[in-house]
Amino acid sequence: MSQSAPFSTAASLPSPAQPSGAMKAARIALRTAAPLVASGPPARREVERFARFSPSPLSMQQFLDFGSANGCERTSFAFLRQELPVRLANILKEIDLLPVQLQSTPSVTLVKSWYMQSLMDLVEFHQKSPDDHRVLSDFIDSLVTVRNRHHNVVPTMAQGIIEYKDTFKVDPVMNQNIQYFLDRFYMNRISFRMLINQHALLFDGNANLMHPQQIGSIDPCCDVVAVVHDAFESSRMLCEQYYSTSPELKLTQVNGKVPGQAIHIVYVPSHLFHMLFELFKNAMRATIEYQENWSSLSPVEVTVVLGNEDLTIKISDRGGGVPVRQVERLFSYMYSTAPRPVMDDSHSAPLALSTDSIEKLPVFNKSAYKHYQATSEADDWCVPSKEPKNLAKQSIAI
Amino acid sequence: MSQSAPFSTAASLPSPAQPSGAMKAARIALRTAAPLVASGPPARREVERFARFSPSPLSMQQFLDFGSANGCERTSFAFLRQELPVRLANILKEIDLLPVQLQSTPSVTLVKSWYMQSLMDLVEFHQKSPDDHRVLSDFIDSLVTVRNRHHNVVPTMAQGIIEYKDTFKVDPVMNQNIQYFLDRFYMNRISFRMLINQHALLFDGNANLMHPQQIGSIDPCCDVVAVVHDAFESSRMLCEQYYSTSPELKLTQVNGKVPGQAIHIVYVPSHLFHMLFELFKNAMRATIEYQENWSSLSPVEVTVVLGNEDLTIKISDRGGGVPVRQVERLFSYMYSTAPRPVMDDSHSAPLALSTDSIEKLPVFNKSAYKHYQATSEADDWCVPSKEPKNLAKQSIAI
Repeated sequence: MSQSAPFSTAASLPSPAQPSGAMKAARIALRTAAPLVASGPPARREVERFARFSPSPLSMQQFLDFGSANGCERTSFAFLRQELPVRLANILKEIDLLPVQLQSTPSVTLVKSWYMQSLMDLVEFHQKSPDDHRVLSDFIDSLVTVRNRHHNVVPTMAQGIIEYKDTFKVDPVMNQNIQYFLDRFYMNRISFRMLINQHALLFDGNANLMHPQQIGSIDPCCDVVAVVHDAFESSRMLCEQYYSTSPELKLTQVNGKVPGQAIHIVYVPSHLFHMLFELFKNAMRATIEYQENWSSLSPVEVTVVLGNEDLTIKISDRGGGVPVRQVERLFSYMYSTAPRPVMDDSHSAPLALSTDSIEKLPVFNKSAYKHYQATSEADDWCVPSKEPKNLAKQSIAI
Repeated sequence: MSQSAPFSTAASLPSPAQPSGAMKAARIALRTAAPLVASGPPARREVERFARFSPSPLSMQQFLDFGSANGCERTSFAFLRQELPVRLANILKEIDLLPVQLQSTPSVTLVKSWYMQSLMDLVEFHQKSPDDHRVLSDFIDSLVTVRNRHHNVVPTMAQGIIEYKDTFKVDPVMNQNIQYFLDRFYMNRISFRMLINQHALLFDGNANLMHPQQIGSIDPCCDVVAVVHDAFESSRMLCEQYYSTSPELKLTQVNGKVPGQAIHIVYVPSHLFHMLFELFKNAMRATIEYQENWSSLSPVEVTVVLGNEDLTIKISDRGGGVPVRQVERLFSYMYSTAPRPVMDDSHSAPLALSTDSIEKLPVFNKSAYKHYQATSEADDWCVPSKEPKNLAKQSIAI
């Protein structure tokens, strides 16, 4: 979210992309785009070559192992020069399936060229030896180049969606397809950046100066409540600048695993901070705007609970809530990247009362028929199992 | 849920069907099933005939209109003799698409015969005149017969699922198909019973004796907090019998629409009671079992909020929660109708810790490819629009 409009999102939950910041950044990106070489047949051949492999998901334990005393830069190098092109190629194949009119927007064309170029940059290292220190050092430089090149991917892609929407009619099926694509595209990007960051932080020689206890960007003992406070204070500073007031934090923590102890988890604190920061900005904005005429602001309530398997962070505000019929849209990239329409409700009373509700009935037709014809097929997410590997429970069908 | 095992569900949220009660009731049903005539070609012809129509969803306003001074028994009769067969026929066509091995279980065969018989019972009235008072009175008798015949549909269907699962391997696709079917089957049943109940209550002559303010089963001024208290006290009585203790209720209400006023909505109080009662039983059971060694029980907290569009009732307990990986299963009929397996975790420590988590990565394959090939098709739910009919907003694309 851009500094100039910290509270500009329409909804009180984080929107997947923000229009104002998106457009600005995309404009900058288009202006500064250097000529790229990787759009010809050789690059396409490499995409086809690496798309034949499935991405190899890493476990948190494997991430930690790379950072342990036994962690080896050459092993990490050998893994990444294969795995990063695989992840780039897999998502490039999906970009190829987007509607042609979306693919050919200047923004999406630019994003695609970045992915192709980065793939080519990384493939070069397949001919180089892990035993040469210069190669290892060049590899880190290339990773940093790739990371910088992809810096504006999110706003540029958002801009592409806006360009497409401005020109073409978007139906629910198209909306669903783009939702499907962007969920996967952004998850791919997070995974890709995580791999780059870990290697760069662990092996560039200055790894542990800033956060000696961290393993790359991972904190094996992340203090969840401390991150909550950090994110809240950062959001509060922005809020004070913008509204000259801000709500208090009311925090409750329950450690259900080791009662009475502080809550620590193995996690990437920067990711946690980012999510909380966005949610707090939304909660503060909703609270202040909804309670404009109240004598005092109600606090934003945060409940942090560590269970045996999961950590739950619940954020509640008294900011008026979101109507059920809009909840789905909050998580839709298509709608949340839209410029806000001018609302004019002044002339007619809303009919959206409970007496307006209509029965929802199943109807038997071709669409329903198709559901019963579904056959078992490969999972389109690469994850070994939905279950934690708890061997004690493997034989039990709950 | 049967009286003998009021706290027998496995999870702390309502399971779609309860095994113990289900099996018992199905056994009774199988024993008492009278020979039915409606399985031959004439019945199949009627199914095909009425399945060609889509169900006509009613609005709450239309339900209220039938019960107003202008409500006309003949109009309701004429509507129902057509609409009820249409709803029965539509869902019968979906039963036809279930796996043959499931369709041919004694339980599902029985359920299907009830639906065929009821369809035939109602079709008979197509030859009769709405102007004959005897016809109108016979129609109400037939509706009551139909309602009684279908009394054990839910446990009998659950028993069919159990029979099928005991014999055949259930894969995730099958699980999903059965989930899809049962969601629709039960929604169809609720809608069907609602129509029968309204007609029977409004036109049997004793309509308003019990609840003079209600229109059939609908309360145009349903006191939500009163229903919450009713359901809580009923659950509490059962809880006291079973555990000799029970948690307190801590209720907060916020009327965001008319601040300070009591919360009233147009609703069917018996439906609200039923949902709350099931949730309270689960919350009480979880609280008592989780807090076995605590000095006192924490209260079950209920927050009732009326917004401009929605009513929200939030129930929170300190009963230990449900791990994320089990949440999906809570709402799965396939899993929740399963007899509970014997758990034996004593010999190995669980590995389900955060360090066990593995990256979730999109993978490009045929399944992903197919998602981009989806074309626009008819909605398989019969509902005019996802939006409330707010004409003020019709021209705005949010």
